Amino acid sequence: MRFEQPLELASGARLAGYELRYETYGTLNAARDDAVLICHALNASHHVAGRYTGQPEQVGWWDNMVGPGRPVDTRRFFVIGVNNLGSCFGSTGPMSIDPATGRHYGASFPVVTVEDWVNAQAGLADRLGIERFAAVMGGSLGAMQALSWTIQYPRRIAHCVAIATTPRLSAQNIAFNEVARTAIRSDPDFHGGDYYSRGVVPKSGLRVARMIGHITYLSDDDMAEKFGRSLRTPDYAFGFGAEFEVESYLRHQGDKFSEYFDANTYLLITRALDYFDPARAYGGDLVQALAPAQAHFLLVSFTTDWRFSPARAREIVEALVVNGRQVVYAEIDAPHGHDAFLLNEPRYHRAVAAYFDNIAAELAG
Amino acid sequence: MRFEQPLELASGARLAGYELRYETYGTLNAARDDAVLICHALNASHHVAGRYTGQPEQVGWWDNMVGPGRPVDTRRFFVIGVNNLGSCFGSTGPMSIDPATGRHYGASFPVVTVEDWVNAQAGLADRLGIERFAAVMGGSLGAMQALSWTIQYPRRIAHCVAIATTPRLSAQNIAFNEVARTAIRSDPDFHGGDYYSRGVVPKSGLRVARMIGHITYLSDDDMAEKFGRSLRTPDYAFGFGAEFEVESYLRHQGDKFSEYFDANTYLLITRALDYFDPARAYGGDLVQALAPAQAHFLLVSFTTDWRFSPARAREIVEALVVNGRQVVYAEIDAPHGHDAFLLNEPRYHRAVAAYFDNIAAELAG
Repeated sequence: MRFEQPLELASGARLAGYELRYETYGTLNAARDDAVLICHALNASHHVAGRYTGQPEQVGWWDNMVGPGRPVDTRRFFVIGVNNLGSCFGSTGPMSIDPATGRHYGASFPVVTVEDWVNAQAGLADRLGIERFAAVMGGSLGAMQALSWTIQYPRRIAHCVAIATTPRLSAQNIAFNEVARTAIRSDPDFHGGDYYSRGVVPKSGLRVARMIGHITYLSDDDMAEKFGRSLRTPDYAFGFGAEFEVESYLRHQGDKFSEYFDANTYLLITRALDYFDPARAYGGDLVQALAPAQAHFLLVSFTTDWRFSPARAREIVEALVVNGRQVVYAEIDAPHGHDAFLLNEPRYHRAVAAYFDNIAAELAG
Repeated sequence: MRFEQPLELASGARLAGYELRYETYGTLNAARDDAVLICHALNASHHVAGRYTGQPEQVGWWDNMVGPGRPVDTRRFFVIGVNNLGSCFGSTGPMSIDPATGRHYGASFPVVTVEDWVNAQAGLADRLGIERFAAVMGGSLGAMQALSWTIQYPRRIAHCVAIATTPRLSAQNIAFNEVARTAIRSDPDFHGGDYYSRGVVPKSGLRVARMIGHITYLSDDDMAEKFGRSLRTPDYAFGFGAEFEVESYLRHQGDKFSEYFDANTYLLITRALDYFDPARAYGGDLVQALAPAQAHFLLVSFTTDWRFSPARAREIVEALVVNGRQVVYAEIDAPHGHDAFLLNEPRYHRAVAAYFDNIAAELAG
């Protein structure tokens, strides 16, 4: 969907006009109060659930969570997935043509924040005639957007469902992002971000970035369980090939990612992660930052998530409780680290399903 | 010191002749039984303690541990530091000229293992007239060498002092190594390892490798304490410069490292780390692997070391106890992660000092 109204960004820059690619599932009811917005994290898109005709492999990134009979049941809710600004799956981003120059935005695409994305999503909601979401939901960076909705548009969100998230990145989180960005920026095919017109892609940098990411998405135990020290060769080969299964796995993940993801988008989205810190405007006081929120909350964390550990989710829960908000918090004992939010962990899915049952009951009542 | 006798390596390759750069501190006693061998980890060298004349900045890497009045007191012990084969500080490695070709070894330098290093160190001991070490000591990869001494040369080591180590890398440890190696190998200045003759250095790759390493050496809490989310700019700059202190720190560490460290050495030494696994020949049974050991042991681990956690040290301790070995184990509550082994943590230094006091008493007795 095309927006011609300029968007003022947190940086002070302005996007004159932009496209937001979105997808919907189910039907908006007559009261227009059963809409659920699903926000994506680093590498996902508007394609949340289901498959496109003729593309059986392109399954939605949260298909186990959203769909008919799923925890977020599209027979009961009208679900919207939207690709964020700066991303590379159809919404305006660095790969798009800047109408002012007739060339790719490239490095000139402005740095966008979680708050900017929420503003753009609110514009989309306006156009779709949705005054108030039954829920805004996301995992990881997606959950930051859901949280930010409760602060930026407290009257437009009934429920916030925030999975595997944190009120702000730690120094270690930022450090991992910075290493990934350094790998991308130092790839000679990056050309300062203006690689599109040169017909090259900084694949080596993207590959390294994704490999680093993957290590932080899995838990140490999970990697031990999945790969251990298993070799793909009968014995040590005394070389630098992919001898250990874990090396082969990471190389494969890196290769796959470098085929479809945009390097400038990687920089932009990790920066949005770094910058997210609603308490910053209040001297670090998360209670004050969350004071405007009116929504009800479901927060979920996973015990082996060392990227955004349960302690970080509890920080949000405590700030909400101090503000008198209604909060359900589930800390799920799951072995899969940060990635658990995308996996079919039964207790986690049951908790989300039960929460959405209650939302449906509220709407029916 | 030059060795003309060929060294048979674990890989089946053979080094026809080689140089070992070493340094000594103190005086070997008449009984020749007070020698302590210090083994280095990834990026260190034979220069363990003290300063060279006219180079006051080049302080030894373990100067707080080794020296007159230090826990390993060079007034009481004859201490030897040796640069390992494949490293880049004077011993034969990829930067050296291969006498067979008259050119740099480069990528043709054979993959070496912890066991190979120990064999080379034993050759050095022979030449120095040391039949049996009072102690072999190291931290991290250095400690793996000390452990391997007890298995390979049980009669030649009285005490093994192993700090912040593990009996084998985990999948996650290998994964971090592989990402670092990928960054180096994909640097176009790497030229498959044969960059010396081209007058270039794969600095970008080394920089990324070092940045990744640094994250794993520090604890999450330590990084939070040291850097938190502090900015170097008055406010968010909405760009990709080093805005956060932690970004600036990592970039600086990466730059420094890329100025002095050799990329092929980085590959070789991380591979030696990956391969170390004495239990592997015994179907994973560490008790059997350590059965030959006769030494007495001091093991130290640090609570916030998430690279080689205390649980891994305890695995070694337990296997030694089952074998009836005499073991002192200190688990130090320190905030500095893996790096703690290089730092001036008083309880840790007191434990090592007390242990060496006992060794000195044994020698005197």
